[in-house]
Amino acid sequence: MVSKRDFKGSSGRIERARDAGAALALEAIVFLDMANIRYLVGFTGSDGALIVGEKSNYLLVDGRYTSQARREAHDAEIREYRNKVEGIASVIEGEGWKNVGIESMAVTLHDYIKLRDRLEVRDLRCLAETVASLRAVKDTAEVDRVKEAIRVSSRAFLSVLAGLRPGVEEREVALELEYQIRRGGAENVSFETIVASGENSAMPHARPGRRRLETGDLVVIDYGAVCEGYCSDETCTVAVGDVSERQREVYGIVKEAHDRAIAAVRAGVACSEIDRVARNFLAERGLEKHFSHGTGHGVGLRVHEEPRLSCLSKDRLEPGMIVTVEPGIYLPGSWGIRIEDMVIVEEEGCEILTTVSKDLRVVG
Amino acid sequence: MVSKRDFKGSSGRIERARDAGAALALEAIVFLDMANIRYLVGFTGSDGALIVGEKSNYLLVDGRYTSQARREAHDAEIREYRNKVEGIASVIEGEGWKNVGIESMAVTLHDYIKLRDRLEVRDLRCLAETVASLRAVKDTAEVDRVKEAIRVSSRAFLSVLAGLRPGVEEREVALELEYQIRRGGAENVSFETIVASGENSAMPHARPGRRRLETGDLVVIDYGAVCEGYCSDETCTVAVGDVSERQREVYGIVKEAHDRAIAAVRAGVACSEIDRVARNFLAERGLEKHFSHGTGHGVGLRVHEEPRLSCLSKDRLEPGMIVTVEPGIYLPGSWGIRIEDMVIVEEEGCEILTTVSKDLRVVG
Repeated sequence: MVSKRDFKGSSGRIERARDAGAALALEAIVFLDMANIRYLVGFTGSDGALIVGEKSNYLLVDGRYTSQARREAHDAEIREYRNKVEGIASVIEGEGWKNVGIESMAVTLHDYIKLRDRLEVRDLRCLAETVASLRAVKDTAEVDRVKEAIRVSSRAFLSVLAGLRPGVEEREVALELEYQIRRGGAENVSFETIVASGENSAMPHARPGRRRLETGDLVVIDYGAVCEGYCSDETCTVAVGDVSERQREVYGIVKEAHDRAIAAVRAGVACSEIDRVARNFLAERGLEKHFSHGTGHGVGLRVHEEPRLSCLSKDRLEPGMIVTVEPGIYLPGSWGIRIEDMVIVEEEGCEILTTVSKDLRVVG
Repeated sequence: MVSKRDFKGSSGRIERARDAGAALALEAIVFLDMANIRYLVGFTGSDGALIVGEKSNYLLVDGRYTSQARREAHDAEIREYRNKVEGIASVIEGEGWKNVGIESMAVTLHDYIKLRDRLEVRDLRCLAETVASLRAVKDTAEVDRVKEAIRVSSRAFLSVLAGLRPGVEEREVALELEYQIRRGGAENVSFETIVASGENSAMPHARPGRRRLETGDLVVIDYGAVCEGYCSDETCTVAVGDVSERQREVYGIVKEAHDRAIAAVRAGVACSEIDRVARNFLAERGLEKHFSHGTGHGVGLRVHEEPRLSCLSKDRLEPGMIVTVEPGIYLPGSWGIRIEDMVIVEEEGCEILTTVSKDLRVVG
C-alpha cells in the first residue's frame, strides 16, 4: 500500500485537497485555517482565504499581504480583497460554483451567515476536517524544521538552567527562556512557556507567576520554539535542591510511564494504545487518577494537531507522524511532574527527536 | 442625559448585559468572547463560556480553570465542563430556556452546528454585537490600567532607543523592546511589535526581519504592553542619522495631520469626522492616496476594539472612550511614516495619554 508520505512535497498537496473535494462532490473548498493555507500553498501571512477548485485555485488576501502572497504562494492565483467575505463570494460567483465546502472550525458563525446570505449556492457544506490527517504525516523538509525548532528551544532551556535557584520568580525564568529561544533564531515561541513551581506544578496549565523557587520544589518547564512555521514542544521537570523521597519515587514512575509509552510507538499501532500503555502503568502504581490529560498529540505547523494520543482517538500511527509523549502526575495542592519528548513514528518503532535528558536533574 | 460612564463599575456590567438580552426578548445570552467574559465577570482564563440569564448567570470552564474561576469570577455560578458545547447545552436545558442569543463573532460554525443540533430551542439567535459599545467607554479603574500599560511600554521604548544605530537588525530591536516591556512588568505585549526600516517602513504591517538599519532610514516602531488585561498602542517613527529633506517634510505633514485629528477629538463628534480631518489635511498636501488605513481605533481589553475612527463608522465619541490617532503615509518601495498616540475623550476635548514626544527624533 502506498503511504501518505509518498504523496508529499508541497506540489502534491493541493492535488490531494482538490481530490478530497471531488470525493465529496464539491466543486471547491474554501480554506480559512491559516496553517492549512500555509501547508497547501506556502503563504505565511496571518489572514486570508484559499479556494481550491476543480481547475483553479485562488489565494485571497487583503492589501497588507498582496506582495507577500505573490512572493510566497505557489499553485494559486492571488486576489486582493477589501472585505474577505465579499472576496470569497465574488470568486465563487465568478466560477459559477454551486456546491462548495467551507472549513467549519475556522470560520465564525458571523462570517458564515454573511457568506451564505450573499451567495446563491445549492450546497455550502460545513467541513470539520479537510487536510488535518494529511498534515499529520511529515515530509523530510518538515522534519528538518521541527528538528531546528527543537535544537533552538533545547539550547535555550539548557542556557537558563544555570539560573534556576531558590529566590528566582517563575515569570523571570519564563521570560528569560522565551528571550533565549528568540535570540537563538526562533521566529517565536510555540506557546506561552509554562514554569510551574511548588504547588503550582500540580496545575498542568499553570501560568508563570510571581512565586519564587524554593528548595524542595519540583519545577515543571514546558516550552517550545517556532522555526519556519514548525513547532517544538518539550517538558522537563527539575528539582530545586533536595526533594523528598516520594517526589523522586514518583518522578521515576512518570519517567517509566513515558519510556514505556515511547517503546510502544510504531507504525500501525492505535494512538489510543500509546495512551493506554502510559495510563495502565500509572494505574499499576495507584496514580492513574492524578494523570488528568491525554498522553500526547501531533506537532507541526501547530503545536497541537493530529493525531491525538488519547483514549478517544480512532487513528493509527503512520510513519512520519511527529507526536509528543507526555505523561504527568498532579497532586493538587502539593506538586506535579510532567516529562515530555517528541518522537517521529517509524515502521519498526520511533526516533526520539528531543535531546534534553529526562533523568531527574537537581539545580540550585 | 446620563452617560454610559455612570453605569460603570464591574457590578453594573452584568445587569447591562442582561437588560440587552431582555430588550431582544431573549432569556439568556451565551458569551464566548473571552474579553467580554473578563469584562463582565472578571475571569481572566483563556477559554470558557458565560451564560447570562434572566435570574442566574453561569461561568463555564474546563478543569484547568475551575479553581481560578472560583477565585476570580463575580456575579456567576461556576460550572466545570469536559466538553464546552455539552456544558453550554446542559445549562440551557436545565433552565428550560427556549430563546437564547449567542455571540456569532466568537463561535465557530462547527461549535454552533453542534450546539444547535443538540438543543431544542425555539430561537438560537446570532448576535454580532453584545457589549462592545459598553466596553468602548472606560471607567476609572480601566483608565488606570491603560495608563500603566502606556507607562511600561513607553519606558521600554525609551530604553531601546539608545541601541538604534546602523547595522542593528530590525528583529533584534523588536526582541529587545518586547523583552524590556515584559521585564518592566507587563504580562505580555499587546501585539507583535513592528520595527520596519527603510523600504519596509512603507508596509503598514511589516514584520520585523533581518534587514539592518542604515543611515538615512526612517524606522516605524509600533509597540504596546498589556497590564492587568489592558493594552497600550503607540507608534514612533525615528530617523537614523541624516534623512532627506522630503522625509522631514512628510514627517511634518503626518505630524500635522495627527495633531489636527487630536484637536478635533471631543465628546459628541462623529468618529468618521476625526478620520476626515486627518485625511483631508493629507489630501491638501497631495498625499491622501498614500494613507491606506483608518485614523484610529478603541483600545482596552483588546488592542483593537470599538470605536473605529474610520470613514465607515456610524459611532460618535463619548467621554471615557480611549482611542488611538495614527495617520500614516506609505510610499511603496521607498519609505513610510506613522505617528500614533492614545487619547481619552472628554466633554470639551481630550487628554493625550501617551507620553513619548512625537517630534522627529534622530538616532545613531
